[in-house]
Amino acid sequence: MSYAFPDSSFVSQELENHIRRVHSIAKNAITEGKYIVFGTGSTQLLSAAVFALSMNLSSPAKIVAQAPYYPTYRAQTDFFQTAWFGFQGDASVLKNTSGDGAELIEFVTSPNNPDAQLRNGVLQGPHVKAIYDHAYYWPHYTAIPAPADEDLMIFTISKLTGHAGSRFGWALVKDKQVYENMIQYIQIAELGTSKDTQLRALQLLKAIHGQKIFHFAYKTMIDKWEKLSEIVSRSNRFTIQEIPPLFCNFFEEVRGPSPAYAWLKCEREEDSNCSAVLRAAKIIGREGSLFESDDRYVRLSLLRSQDDFDLLLRRLNDLISKEKGAQTI
Amino acid sequence: MSYAFPDSSFVSQELENHIRRVHSIAKNAITEGKYIVFGTGSTQLLSAAVFALSMNLSSPAKIVAQAPYYPTYRAQTDFFQTAWFGFQGDASVLKNTSGDGAELIEFVTSPNNPDAQLRNGVLQGPHVKAIYDHAYYWPHYTAIPAPADEDLMIFTISKLTGHAGSRFGWALVKDKQVYENMIQYIQIAELGTSKDTQLRALQLLKAIHGQKIFHFAYKTMIDKWEKLSEIVSRSNRFTIQEIPPLFCNFFEEVRGPSPAYAWLKCEREEDSNCSAVLRAAKIIGREGSLFESDDRYVRLSLLRSQDDFDLLLRRLNDLISKEKGAQTI
Repeated sequence: MSYAFPDSSFVSQELENHIRRVHSIAKNAITEGKYIVFGTGSTQLLSAAVFALSMNLSSPAKIVAQAPYYPTYRAQTDFFQTAWFGFQGDASVLKNTSGDGAELIEFVTSPNNPDAQLRNGVLQGPHVKAIYDHAYYWPHYTAIPAPADEDLMIFTISKLTGHAGSRFGWALVKDKQVYENMIQYIQIAELGTSKDTQLRALQLLKAIHGQKIFHFAYKTMIDKWEKLSEIVSRSNRFTIQEIPPLFCNFFEEVRGPSPAYAWLKCEREEDSNCSAVLRAAKIIGREGSLFESDDRYVRLSLLRSQDDFDLLLRRLNDLISKEKGAQTI
Repeated sequence: MSYAFPDSSFVSQELENHIRRVHSIAKNAITEGKYIVFGTGSTQLLSAAVFALSMNLSSPAKIVAQAPYYPTYRAQTDFFQTAWFGFQGDASVLKNTSGDGAELIEFVTSPNNPDAQLRNGVLQGPHVKAIYDHAYYWPHYTAIPAPADEDLMIFTISKLTGHAGSRFGWALVKDKQVYENMIQYIQIAELGTSKDTQLRALQLLKAIHGQKIFHFAYKTMIDKWEKLSEIVSRSNRFTIQEIPPLFCNFFEEVRGPSPAYAWLKCEREEDSNCSAVLRAAKIIGREGSLFESDDRYVRLSLLRSQDDFDLLLRRLNDLISKEKGAQTI
């Protein structure tokens, strides 16, 4: 089996066609007029995108993301210690500066990981470029106000069908030069994307015949969120983020939240280390500081198996039931 | 399917066991006392290894390789424009310098791509580290004088079974810290290696029951080499590299060459662009300058399909038959 397909391409044209088809079913992104880059998970594409946007600039690009943000943006950007770019931290700090002429690259995660808010870029202007991480921009996690149509958008099969271990993601890219730079990154870093992985992704996408999978997945996610919300609502000690109901382009109606993560806050003054409070009750989450936020917050996953999630609910319920003043079931 | 296996590892223990088993059949590497890192092809592991050896040094490491060398070493090392290391070119230039205290990292490709010579590192000393690229160190491409036992060795399924498109390679690593650094690179660059690719690699390695595949592949390769050698030997215009017969640890006897590539030289003064000379006869090879060598050389692949290779032989034979003074068949 060669590096390339018989048509000399490193990517399966059939898989590319199915990606476009699935976006048109989900009504979550406009693929017309965009190139598609395959990657070993969206993780690789994040890096490919940063390099693609910053290569050959006269001064290093400044990379930002609005806190709370997915920690990989910083970890990956710092790791390479490259002359092309450097991580600057929270996007807000650069919001009202006119800049020193350096290009600014903002990671915009929408819906956001960890707090599931739909987002637009914080920064504006001629020197600003955005990488839209749309890993969770699917009807099972969020209302889709409109199909996304940004210049550089990244998706992953991990959060579409749950096959994180397959390591397959794709980018939709408007600009030809950026597309070519990303391809160059993928070629130099690892000479293309595994054909076996492409085949697996193709099988998965082929299994998506219509809207049914999104209805099923939405039902699964909203059930989890409603159960979790109900338990937390009885607490004075903990709160979770509010996500407003929104009109959804996919469901063609206003719908409630069904996020991948709860962004839980410990409200008591003394609970400044919220993850320790939860850990004492055998509840495991990710500390807020990992997301450049406060350790008063913890990210709880709603993507675990139903068994794991039921255990989380039971333990959280037990913990909240012990609160003075908490409403009992 | 999660990022990790049920034992929380990102790598299949069964696949790791089969890698060790296949090396013991091929008698080409000592795996005892070494950690194994999986990568998306050996290409990713080359980069992981350079980062792993140079991270956190007080000054940038200098990367070298002895010309002629595989162009990816330079392309990849230059691409990242990192503070950790920089490519210096041919290893020979640093051979007799005492150095400025900077760490030196030498890529040692053995057998070498393009010229199939068995190699040891050019540089010696306390500041020198080597990355052994053993992609071609299998009994079908070379005599195995002894099982390789270097501190950092990289292999790939591409050159073992021919499944380049699967993008699966592995490194054998002696030092725990270097191993952990490489794992960190893989995690940061793409959150682990595709499980589908690991499964494919497992299926391929499981199919290797004994020595038979190596006997078959050796026969295939030596047949190609002997036919090519026979044709070139009738030419005064072209020569190919000499590879001395050597005792082979696998075959337990002295054996002749069966390399993956011929390193063909245009001997005529006026043929300074050898690849153009060949291209005019519809023979495609890679120019010597790609390998930081002279364009008087061209790398011809013996890894193509039998049909493609037969076409190469026929065209080369036609070209040589036109030489004045060439021996006719």
